[in-house]
Amino acid sequence: MLNLRPVIFFMGLLTVVLSVAMCLPALVDVADGNADWVHFVEAALIAGFLGGVAVSACWDRQRIHLDLRQAFLITTLGWIVVSVVAAIPFVSLGHSLTDAVFETMSGITTTGSTVFSHLDSQPLGVLLWRALLQWVGGIGIIAMAILMLPVLRVGGMQLFRIESSESSEKVAASAVKTILYLFLIYVILTVACALLFYLFGMSAFDAITHSMTTLSTGGYSTHDASFAYFKQPALHWIATVFMVLGSFPFYLYARAATTRGRAMFADEQVRGLVSLLVITSVLMAFWLYFRRDIGFFDALQLTAFNVTSVVTTTGFVTQDYTTWGSGAIGVFLVLMYFGGCSGSTAGAIKIYRLQIVYRIVRVHVKRLFSPHRVMALHYNGKTVPDDVPYSILAFLTVYVATISLFTMALALMGLDLVTAYSATVTAIANVGPGLGNVVGPAGNFASLPDAAKWLLIFAMLAGRLEVLALLVVFDREFWRY
Amino acid sequence: MLNLRPVIFFMGLLTVVLSVAMCLPALVDVADGNADWVHFVEAALIAGFLGGVAVSACWDRQRIHLDLRQAFLITTLGWIVVSVVAAIPFVSLGHSLTDAVFETMSGITTTGSTVFSHLDSQPLGVLLWRALLQWVGGIGIIAMAILMLPVLRVGGMQLFRIESSESSEKVAASAVKTILYLFLIYVILTVACALLFYLFGMSAFDAITHSMTTLSTGGYSTHDASFAYFKQPALHWIATVFMVLGSFPFYLYARAATTRGRAMFADEQVRGLVSLLVITSVLMAFWLYFRRDIGFFDALQLTAFNVTSVVTTTGFVTQDYTTWGSGAIGVFLVLMYFGGCSGSTAGAIKIYRLQIVYRIVRVHVKRLFSPHRVMALHYNGKTVPDDVPYSILAFLTVYVATISLFTMALALMGLDLVTAYSATVTAIANVGPGLGNVVGPAGNFASLPDAAKWLLIFAMLAGRLEVLALLVVFDREFWRY
Repeated sequence: MLNLRPVIFFMGLLTVVLSVAMCLPALVDVADGNADWVHFVEAALIAGFLGGVAVSACWDRQRIHLDLRQAFLITTLGWIVVSVVAAIPFVSLGHSLTDAVFETMSGITTTGSTVFSHLDSQPLGVLLWRALLQWVGGIGIIAMAILMLPVLRVGGMQLFRIESSESSEKVAASAVKTILYLFLIYVILTVACALLFYLFGMSAFDAITHSMTTLSTGGYSTHDASFAYFKQPALHWIATVFMVLGSFPFYLYARAATTRGRAMFADEQVRGLVSLLVITSVLMAFWLYFRRDIGFFDALQLTAFNVTSVVTTTGFVTQDYTTWGSGAIGVFLVLMYFGGCSGSTAGAIKIYRLQIVYRIVRVHVKRLFSPHRVMALHYNGKTVPDDVPYSILAFLTVYVATISLFTMALALMGLDLVTAYSATVTAIANVGPGLGNVVGPAGNFASLPDAAKWLLIFAMLAGRLEVLALLVVFDREFWRY
Repeated sequence: MLNLRPVIFFMGLLTVVLSVAMCLPALVDVADGNADWVHFVEAALIAGFLGGVAVSACWDRQRIHLDLRQAFLITTLGWIVVSVVAAIPFVSLGHSLTDAVFETMSGITTTGSTVFSHLDSQPLGVLLWRALLQWVGGIGIIAMAILMLPVLRVGGMQLFRIESSESSEKVAASAVKTILYLFLIYVILTVACALLFYLFGMSAFDAITHSMTTLSTGGYSTHDASFAYFKQPALHWIATVFMVLGSFPFYLYARAATTRGRAMFADEQVRGLVSLLVITSVLMAFWLYFRRDIGFFDALQLTAFNVTSVVTTTGFVTQDYTTWGSGAIGVFLVLMYFGGCSGSTAGAIKIYRLQIVYRIVRVHVKRLFSPHRVMALHYNGKTVPDDVPYSILAFLTVYVATISLFTMALALMGLDLVTAYSATVTAIANVGPGLGNVVGPAGNFASLPDAAKWLLIFAMLAGRLEVLALLVVFDREFWRY
């Protein structure tokens, strides 16, 4: 029998945390003299009540030991519950349920696509709530990627499993310790980013909200112009650096601190990501330099920022790069698939999968013409466990098939092909902007039909759960015994 | 050491066969009173001389026994040599080398994309040569898919390996027997198709050329309007049926004859393909019926023909289906990936891979939440060999990655996204028409830049060789020892 008590307990816990978090935008609105604080307090009371009931009803004094199915359910339901509960203030403020859930799902999955317009004139509480959701989503993703997915063996994540022969009690204790340690790094980086933003010219509010959505590679801005609102080059470069820091593997930061960064740059994922960003940015800067009347370093500032923003799945924009020509559009389309490192806040396929897949294919091709050769796969100096290649290939297949199906479904709803395809990819990869006039960097998701928005809400969730974890709970047998 | 003698021998043999085949268009031009016959005779002499030299230089009285690398080389080089040799008449007729090779590669890979315009006023010899190339390509693909790829274990084709513990001499003898038998079926079906076309109103020349390009699921027409040139509904339905027959597994036809077709329709591939075609055609016919002022059966005639044409990777067109709305475009984009059965003339991913992948994913998802369950994969009533799922997943990954890279490259050459993407997919899947104004069903590949044409030539070749067989000869170690 599937025991739902611990699942409901955790959902209640998340709801209570959100209820407390809602007090922050309420306070900001009060300080700003905006009457909208009522809506956040109202929502906090509802959430606090519901969460409190769930927690107290399912509280268990026994050590909570999760089985595999409970872990899958908590992982999946967590994102759904948070996005629904977080949508209460938006609904209370008068947004449609569709728009409210789209905005919160895009927030906590750190996608960054928005259906809200006139951001510059939105109340501060709303803007802070959007930023907070991404920030909470960011640490949620890190925790999920480091603690849950490796155990659930989703999409090759077992590669990052922390081997442990200890008792489950010790494991639980060490899990709490790990989360606190990750959270500490996350807070330190966010504060550092906010301080730098503030020092180089942002308002305090913009500095805090943008540092939250930079570190979480989320991409929500408080301005319709996104990051293009800020003219100082220094701010662009600071954001570029912190987007990259947000997509490094967080479990390496402690070791990096004791080895003067060496542990970080010895990591194959990190090296792959940095090389990709540098090479692509420089090449595209040359392309812009030769094609347009623009200095090389201005071009590099543009390409470094926007390439980093798309690869790390942040989604900030400093210029509508779809005006750079069809070549740039093609490159950005492919870049949307990359993503950052595993154990970071970034989404999409992720660097390690692409690196391992490249090796898988090389070995596979060699085995075709010399079938008796024995070839082991290595990654980061270790032999890749036997089931990882298969998991990664299955992940990629499901990923691409999902994109095809969603693209077709969106096209059937009347969207043109570029919009349908790029909206799907940007949602599943949790990037933010798509391509084309409607959902491109200069566009907005508001004009899409409601059915398309729900499909994209589902796509964002699927992407965040690495698709497979979501498929698990859709299997009938999952619920049977 | 890699012994190239048998490779060169086979290439010579193919060239001689082509040289003989070139006499047919020459004869037709003579009969038609067209002076262009000279070009075909010229080309036939060149090809005959080159092929003759290669054959006589590398003829080996010993039984020819191929090792794995020679088999890969012959498989790969075969398509390249044929397309280059077959291009000689076109070059001699004044076409650029790029256009000539594009047309022949599109021909022998049975893709059907064309860079020739004003087809209706082309000399008969040229039109016959294009049709002949597709017809020869068709039987070439069947032979490769049944005799070579299963042995080479490319992309899960080992599933169709004919188990044999016999001596290599007997294997060679039985290979010749198999080819002759497949060729006989191919000829019978082509003649039947041509007779029906003729009886229902085509000219003798159109009947012969179109039956050749229907059975081979090639799609070259002798008219700019493609199959829309023919107004009789019967012709559309005959073509629909024979496109489907061309994408059935040819090794099943003999068994089907002795079981009144039961062996054919007991096959999972065949059932999957037929269900897909029927369901999609009927659903799209309803869509057209409700959206447009058109009778249901007229709509069904349109959808059945064009859906079948795209799924079987033929590429005939009876109406520009991109005018049916964005939903239809989305559906056709996905349909391009499907393809027919293994062991047929059809290209693309193919039904059996999609069916097995569906099962792979289901089992993989179930294993995520119950890791200790043992689940075997079955296909056509047999257990799927252990290495097949991995091969298929690797194939799909390489397939999709290739499409991404080619799309990006075409975009960098200045093509818009829809053109770049759909031209890549249609080339790799060997379908024919892409989407959008340039390469869509109403368009033509002639206006693309030369670099793009060469890239697509390469894509058509890669698709025909199931990508992996081409990657093999690009591996440096392949050539090392």
